[in-house]
Amino acid sequence: MARLFSVFSLRNLLVLSLALNVSLILRVLYEKESGVISGLSLDNKREALRTDSMPSEAHATQREHLSMPSSSSSSSTVDSNGRDRVINLDHGDPTMYERYWQQTGEKSTILIPGWQSMSYFSDAGSLCWFLEPEFAKEIIRLHKVVGNAVTEDRYIVVGTGSTQLYQAVLYALSPLDALEPLSVVSAAPYYSSYPLITDCLKSGLYKWAGDAQSFNKEGPYIELVTSPNNPDGYVRQSVVNKSGGILVHDLAYYWPQYSPIAAAADHDIMLFTVSKSTGHAGMRIGWALVKDEEVAKKMVKYVELNTIGVSKDSQLRAAKVLQVVTDGCKYPTSKEGSLFDFAAHLMEERWKLLRAAVRQSGLFTLPEFPHGSCRFLNISFAPRPERLSTIHLRQSMQVDETAE
Amino acid sequence: MARLFSVFSLRNLLVLSLALNVSLILRVLYEKESGVISGLSLDNKREALRTDSMPSEAHATQREHLSMPSSSSSSSTVDSNGRDRVINLDHGDPTMYERYWQQTGEKSTILIPGWQSMSYFSDAGSLCWFLEPEFAKEIIRLHKVVGNAVTEDRYIVVGTGSTQLYQAVLYALSPLDALEPLSVVSAAPYYSSYPLITDCLKSGLYKWAGDAQSFNKEGPYIELVTSPNNPDGYVRQSVVNKSGGILVHDLAYYWPQYSPIAAAADHDIMLFTVSKSTGHAGMRIGWALVKDEEVAKKMVKYVELNTIGVSKDSQLRAAKVLQVVTDGCKYPTSKEGSLFDFAAHLMEERWKLLRAAVRQSGLFTLPEFPHGSCRFLNISFAPRPERLSTIHLRQSMQVDETAE
Repeated sequence: MARLFSVFSLRNLLVLSLALNVSLILRVLYEKESGVISGLSLDNKREALRTDSMPSEAHATQREHLSMPSSSSSSSTVDSNGRDRVINLDHGDPTMYERYWQQTGEKSTILIPGWQSMSYFSDAGSLCWFLEPEFAKEIIRLHKVVGNAVTEDRYIVVGTGSTQLYQAVLYALSPLDALEPLSVVSAAPYYSSYPLITDCLKSGLYKWAGDAQSFNKEGPYIELVTSPNNPDGYVRQSVVNKSGGILVHDLAYYWPQYSPIAAAADHDIMLFTVSKSTGHAGMRIGWALVKDEEVAKKMVKYVELNTIGVSKDSQLRAAKVLQVVTDGCKYPTSKEGSLFDFAAHLMEERWKLLRAAVRQSGLFTLPEFPHGSCRFLNISFAPRPERLSTIHLRQSMQVDETAE
Repeated sequence: MARLFSVFSLRNLLVLSLALNVSLILRVLYEKESGVISGLSLDNKREALRTDSMPSEAHATQREHLSMPSSSSSSSTVDSNGRDRVINLDHGDPTMYERYWQQTGEKSTILIPGWQSMSYFSDAGSLCWFLEPEFAKEIIRLHKVVGNAVTEDRYIVVGTGSTQLYQAVLYALSPLDALEPLSVVSAAPYYSSYPLITDCLKSGLYKWAGDAQSFNKEGPYIELVTSPNNPDGYVRQSVVNKSGGILVHDLAYYWPQYSPIAAAADHDIMLFTVSKSTGHAGMRIGWALVKDEEVAKKMVKYVELNTIGVSKDSQLRAAKVLQVVTDGCKYPTSKEGSLFDFAAHLMEERWKLLRAAVRQSGLFTLPEFPHGSCRFLNISFAPRPERLSTIHLRQSMQVDETAE
């Protein structure tokens, strides 16, 4: 109980302290300019500092604190002068990208007549029969221009967000006739929704087996490698290194705004999503690059059983959005530069402000990431993950974990 | 083996015979008019005679026979004169609705700018936080004008097709701490994908328990009532009638083009989908009307874990399409009348041709449905389901089911 109370108090303290510090910084900045603060646009709580996939277990408590378009007046924590602004530490929503997309204007607009996309099928002859060919083409173009993943000799499987593809992978890799469920592990700290998603139906095919670092069971297993990692932003490799393991790479954050692109990822199973790359979380579109044909076929089968394919409207829109991103990289026209220039600048500014606030508080530390060279942006920089959960209490302030 | 062979041969015979007969009818009609045959538009194999939810297990074999937009030249079974046309008995695709939507023109067109719908949230304050309010409004309007379901005192949960909502219902109704999986039953013949979807992950929460008519296990269970039924078109009631049962009504086909609307359905859990009502299968949008708040909350939780919500783009498009359908019912302008007038006429014509072909074959019989009064169309008619799987061999031709 004592421990719980102290952790709780310190968490509260963290929020209060950060809010106060950021509020102070913002007040200074607000006095200089009215309107949107450069980089750290906290003029609306929808623009949270981190934009990770929404941890579902936290959602019930999020609604109260989250100011949405449809309920922006429901919160009492923001006054008209913006002096009591709160950083939402609980989850993220990629609306910080809206400004970029606004200035792309008609180029990124899509028009869908009522008679279009009525069929279940997108490309009946191909392995992934519900994948829009236009979207597949733009996925390849984007990876080519960014250089973050090998697309050659890969099957593309589209999913209703990468969350569905994660489940498709589990289904695809689990033998149907195994005596016990396949173990699924990932090195801690891992994305908090992974265990919940894995175990929600008490599947006999697979089972969450916790931290990969302490995994020592014999036999086959799946190791999830999220790189850059959610929640801590570090670049990762697999850690188990036992025989019978299959690696799944969640590369949702392997884009130049978050992390230097060192090389084109060349793994057997790689997951991506528009929520993180372009900021279109509302589309619910993700894609997998898969080397093995049988694995890809079984993933398609899962999506077929789960949702009979993936929204065509969102795929067509995703194709358009990816096309604009790639064109923006190849032929930059706006003063904002490419989407990645815009987003990288935004993340950099936010991290600067965050570091200043944390420094001022004296209570916490932020991780220092090693610099790396980015083949896309042609500069060297330290990763700037979008999450705040990597804030640590200073050593002297650590909660006594043994106290009860 | 002998039985298998004889069944197989007779199925082949059925297809061949029907194809031949319809081909003959079409040839006669083609000599009278070139272009689209009134009602039975078989000028493209995409327009299959039935448009049921695609049974996933059959898909692998479907691709060969299905001529899709992107691969319309891949088949060799249709000659330029359309004389060897084949009716696809294997699955359906609601492209027969395209003609209606084409003539609605700009009214049903949607335009989505690149900066729109970026957030995960649609209505953060509501129980179903990923449901677009505009779509919810149009669902209620449509049910009101058609009179096929009670929407008062119901929660609306949106899903990636009704397939996802079916799984959400199973998750919502299954106690997490039960000693054994909850039994899921439905009266045979039932939708062939139900057992596959239910058991694909070997869930410890629920399990397919087969035909509801022979179900006699004690304890809680879920009974699926699909009405009108897929695949045979009959209006259904629950059959188990034991204590501890929870009913789930799949009302995907309870629309005036398929069946007379006798009264507004008033069940605890009702599932609908745009694939069957408006023909927009590619949207992957379904909705559930749910009486109990806790059930609705758990369904939302499932969709959150499974796909973190539902495509906003498709929901916005579905809102537009439903709006046009409702307006078309209230203020009919085109010569086609409302969507339901158009589709009812289409189904009627197809059934006429089918009955003629079957009569001519002498080998098969089709079910005779009782007429019923439709409160929407204000006429009395017999159901016209969209499936062909209800064709029966004449009694004298029945396969000996006991032969091995």
